[in-house]
Amino acid sequence: MRAVIRRNKQLVCDEIAELTPGEGQVLVKTLACGICGSDLHALHHMERIIDLSRRGGGGGDFDPSADTVFGHEFCGEILESGRGATRGLKAGTRVVSVPVTMTPGGMESLGYSNRLPGGFAERILLTEALVLEVPNGLATDIAALTEPFAVGAHAVAKARLDSDSVCMVIGCGPVGLAVIAALKARGHGPVIAADFSPRRRAAAETLGADVIIDPAKESPHMRWEDFGVPRSRAAQSMMQTMGKRFGRPVIFECVGSPGVLQSLIEAAPTGAQIVVAGVCMETDRIEPAIAVTKEIELTFVFAYTPAEFAATLTDLAEGRIVTEGLVTGKVGLDEVAAAFVALRDPEAHVKILVEPGR
Amino acid sequence: MRAVIRRNKQLVCDEIAELTPGEGQVLVKTLACGICGSDLHALHHMERIIDLSRRGGGGGDFDPSADTVFGHEFCGEILESGRGATRGLKAGTRVVSVPVTMTPGGMESLGYSNRLPGGFAERILLTEALVLEVPNGLATDIAALTEPFAVGAHAVAKARLDSDSVCMVIGCGPVGLAVIAALKARGHGPVIAADFSPRRRAAAETLGADVIIDPAKESPHMRWEDFGVPRSRAAQSMMQTMGKRFGRPVIFECVGSPGVLQSLIEAAPTGAQIVVAGVCMETDRIEPAIAVTKEIELTFVFAYTPAEFAATLTDLAEGRIVTEGLVTGKVGLDEVAAAFVALRDPEAHVKILVEPGR
Repeated sequence: MRAVIRRNKQLVCDEIAELTPGEGQVLVKTLACGICGSDLHALHHMERIIDLSRRGGGGGDFDPSADTVFGHEFCGEILESGRGATRGLKAGTRVVSVPVTMTPGGMESLGYSNRLPGGFAERILLTEALVLEVPNGLATDIAALTEPFAVGAHAVAKARLDSDSVCMVIGCGPVGLAVIAALKARGHGPVIAADFSPRRRAAAETLGADVIIDPAKESPHMRWEDFGVPRSRAAQSMMQTMGKRFGRPVIFECVGSPGVLQSLIEAAPTGAQIVVAGVCMETDRIEPAIAVTKEIELTFVFAYTPAEFAATLTDLAEGRIVTEGLVTGKVGLDEVAAAFVALRDPEAHVKILVEPGR
Repeated sequence: MRAVIRRNKQLVCDEIAELTPGEGQVLVKTLACGICGSDLHALHHMERIIDLSRRGGGGGDFDPSADTVFGHEFCGEILESGRGATRGLKAGTRVVSVPVTMTPGGMESLGYSNRLPGGFAERILLTEALVLEVPNGLATDIAALTEPFAVGAHAVAKARLDSDSVCMVIGCGPVGLAVIAALKARGHGPVIAADFSPRRRAAAETLGADVIIDPAKESPHMRWEDFGVPRSRAAQSMMQTMGKRFGRPVIFECVGSPGVLQSLIEAAPTGAQIVVAGVCMETDRIEPAIAVTKEIELTFVFAYTPAEFAATLTDLAEGRIVTEGLVTGKVGLDEVAAAFVALRDPEAHVKILVEPGR
């Protein structure tokens, strides 16, 4: 079958071996699979990602120099069930899944595996127990957004929000947009969103952000007071002395570039929680004494739980996440390499889906 | 009256102006005042501390080049009450207080003020409303430890511990010891404590740490499994799948040197909360991608609330904090400069108290 392969840090379209569903597995035809920011990064920097992942306790025995088929944001349809796959999912049933497949040799991370292809292939192998049926009526394009939006659901779950919380989203790329969507789906707000890109600011507005800031024109941190959050310890103490409540400030860092954390530590109100959802792959510098003085909390978050993934699919199916205009391009396997280039410009696209059958 | 003054980055014993209690203030004779690690640092690096404090939203108009009388860990006795000080505290009543005095010009931080002396002076001015009477029978030396132990109470309060939590204290200087004391006073544990200094390890044992590690011989992180905490995400997932509970790992960083945070991010179990109670005054480097992969939480903590300060005094009075052997020296005002030098060697002392009347 055909697939897009990462080979020598390039994307090439080539034939790969056919798949046969093993014990408990289902063979799935890939209908659509999103291109993720991690894929763009991994194309050139896989070795660094794997090194960091290993030092973080993961990474397994993945060999970044061997062929890899990316794609972990997929929606597909059941073709065939293997032995022990007993749910009776009929051929043609549309499904999504967390991008993990159980094999006799262990767990494979689809999209970052040397043994199994991810969704930039005509067919993939999934573990039947993990697949979720796409609810009737939910478009394939939207179902394929479950994975990136689940990232936002997890970040929001880790933020320990209450009804008084005031939220700020720094960076409205795919991660920031997913956070905004999850906040609004759960009824949290107000949500202040900031990004330098007009296109991303427009997407933040579509997803329901309450205040949208161009940081080239003003600092989003000038808006805390508008929502009753005093920035300094002295002002907070005075409000507490007067018995006035104020919302706990929560900032979602969705940029992932060096320097952003320190800039947020310096600009954040005293007592802010910074949920770090952007993945900075480089060594970063912070000044801990300032974080101490302000009692900042840095909550680093990663991925999502199966329950959060399932809840996100339901949110999409029930219209709690607005998705109009998010899919800005669809490409066949031959066009994936060009799509990776196009995605470097934040004005050009929000999300591109790969349709291997196109 | 006599005081030890920081002047031109040196400690000199000299006369300063007498104090008269103003509205709502009490004049207090200083009986004992501990030397804090911050004082040692501030002697030479006050400018840097104030710069960082200002960038953290504090610092006020303090001038680090002007004369300052250190000392914020004091116990004294009431000499005289000013107008509006209506609690009727009799002369001779022993008191402690959070080191803050209200004045017509605003709040002064005792020990870091250009306008009021801290406890390395024969007398100090306190706000009557903030002073706490030392419970009958509690020795002055021990009451003077309220302030440093309150720092531990606050760090522990910020850790969101439950009955399953497993705690590790990195660094058993004054901050680490205060954390150990607060953990044991609140019934938390097990507590694994690590320090390179034999004297500090002995103090950690006195205060009730359950496991005491010399990091020169073994990594404290080899002990997580002893208390049922799996370190890797894979091992944690497996235990969760099997329905086994495990304690949330909480690490108290009480060193405050560059590199310690990153070393903890690398060594900590997945999902660990690192409560940053050590104050690193330098720029530090971290690798956020590893913190992301492990979903580390960095909770920077600062000082304490008046309620935590009061609860600490009660803990000391009721014997919930073991204090034997902690006060390792007592000096008069003339000997403070020498005591600052002696405290640079962790083997020489745990806590030195200044007795201005000595």
